[in-house]
Amino acid sequence: MKKIKRSGRLVDMTYFLLQHPHQVISLTHFSERYQSAKSSISEDLVIVKEIFEEEGYGSLLTISGASGGVKYIPRINAEQVQVYVDDWIKELAVPERILPGGYLYMMDLLGNPTFIQRVGQVFASVLADKKIDAVMTVATKGIPLAYAVGQQLNVPVSIVRRDHLVTEGSMVSINYVSGSSKRIQTMTLARRSLAPGSRVLIVDDFMKAGGTIRGMMDLLEEFQAELVGIGVLVESVGVEERLVDDYLSITRLTEVNVREKTIKVEPGNVRSLLHSEKVEGLE
Amino acid sequence: MKKIKRSGRLVDMTYFLLQHPHQVISLTHFSERYQSAKSSISEDLVIVKEIFEEEGYGSLLTISGASGGVKYIPRINAEQVQVYVDDWIKELAVPERILPGGYLYMMDLLGNPTFIQRVGQVFASVLADKKIDAVMTVATKGIPLAYAVGQQLNVPVSIVRRDHLVTEGSMVSINYVSGSSKRIQTMTLARRSLAPGSRVLIVDDFMKAGGTIRGMMDLLEEFQAELVGIGVLVESVGVEERLVDDYLSITRLTEVNVREKTIKVEPGNVRSLLHSEKVEGLE
Repeated sequence: MKKIKRSGRLVDMTYFLLQHPHQVISLTHFSERYQSAKSSISEDLVIVKEIFEEEGYGSLLTISGASGGVKYIPRINAEQVQVYVDDWIKELAVPERILPGGYLYMMDLLGNPTFIQRVGQVFASVLADKKIDAVMTVATKGIPLAYAVGQQLNVPVSIVRRDHLVTEGSMVSINYVSGSSKRIQTMTLARRSLAPGSRVLIVDDFMKAGGTIRGMMDLLEEFQAELVGIGVLVESVGVEERLVDDYLSITRLTEVNVREKTIKVEPGNVRSLLHSEKVEGLE
Repeated sequence: MKKIKRSGRLVDMTYFLLQHPHQVISLTHFSERYQSAKSSISEDLVIVKEIFEEEGYGSLLTISGASGGVKYIPRINAEQVQVYVDDWIKELAVPERILPGGYLYMMDLLGNPTFIQRVGQVFASVLADKKIDAVMTVATKGIPLAYAVGQQLNVPVSIVRRDHLVTEGSMVSINYVSGSSKRIQTMTLARRSLAPGSRVLIVDDFMKAGGTIRGMMDLLEEFQAELVGIGVLVESVGVEERLVDDYLSITRLTEVNVREKTIKVEPGNVRSLLHSEKVEGLE
């Protein structure tokens, strides 16, 4: 591009960094792009960094050395997470969501790209410092969440399926027991869809007993992959026997009364995790 | 936020506009946020607009009047689309993609959030001026594409399913004939998942005879919804009888030779559509 002034560079840089999260961008790249001295670029980046960090848009890490540059880590702050979670709790507690069997209708939220993107930002904020190679989810409703997180972390998504599709080549299948219905089911993942040894984050929209997530954990073993974390949008509490211990949840569904048409929702542990980080000065 | 200088405002504004595509943001919003006069804000926006439009990041529309403000329309330029499409053609033509039956393995691409986001940008660029209320796709592989487009256009996504899930309330089902296998199949969409009268864009990853897309078009009628357009990532040509006439395609698969292990891929019509717009001075 042609040589431009600082004001133009700041707009262009902000755009570029947002499009390239979790990637090292060399000072040389910017310096050549704007035909400007690296010292000017460094000054620009200080301005970007200040706004990003003050406004809770994320951190801008400076990497020194020959292959040095900057890396944008999307990370919204604890206050913003609290605002989002409080909003979502209100939205989830609307009685009209109750479906036969005590399920909740959530497709209006899951179909909303802004909502999905924010959930992705929340998970990516908590997990920003973990080394993650891939996000795994199971079709269908976990998919948008998994992509939102994958986009923020700049890692690929592996989609586990409950059917056998012929168009993905060799598949790895496992049987698992659905925690709530106790039925034996099958899930499959294309062999090529996850690199062996990957460090994986599992994401899903809803967790009751955790059978589906347990199944994905078993699948990870088949790929010699490693579990880094589990994130769910809604966990349903009051389950007799939970098959998964350690997970992040954004909200907790504590009561669905079909007869009275009432729903009780609380914040999940994600919010408190971010707050405790803040206390330790890590925000 | 506290009062900041132009340089900081430009960073913050760019971030904010990218997070709020296709939404009118009032000058008052920015003026209050930065404690700055509207005249200064207008000058800032001129700088943002210039960079966005010169670099092909999209347009910044100015809406005058009492409820006036600006609206960011993500729209990459024809040159960028050409670069992307050429890249994807090379990637798709790799012989290792060939699966038994002449299918192509594409989950590595469909699992890559950057790829998906770019495909979304391409569709959103072609469709930026259409009035679209919702994006519809069918589970599973169309989902990430649909969200990417929905995010750019700031509209919700409706996911059609091939199974009946109990947790979405009342469903509308139709039968359709898969164009290639001639089998009768069922697809369903939750009643609540698409508002009656919506103007809908249908998106899918792959189109052969178009039976699945034809099915979604039939579903639209059940919702009294209107079809605005159809977008596919890969269309397979050489199909005897195509069930869909008018669609946007990013790439065209013209030959898969399983024996010789060769694949031929050409650009779809999206590229030429953007170029013809450019000729008419609409870019």
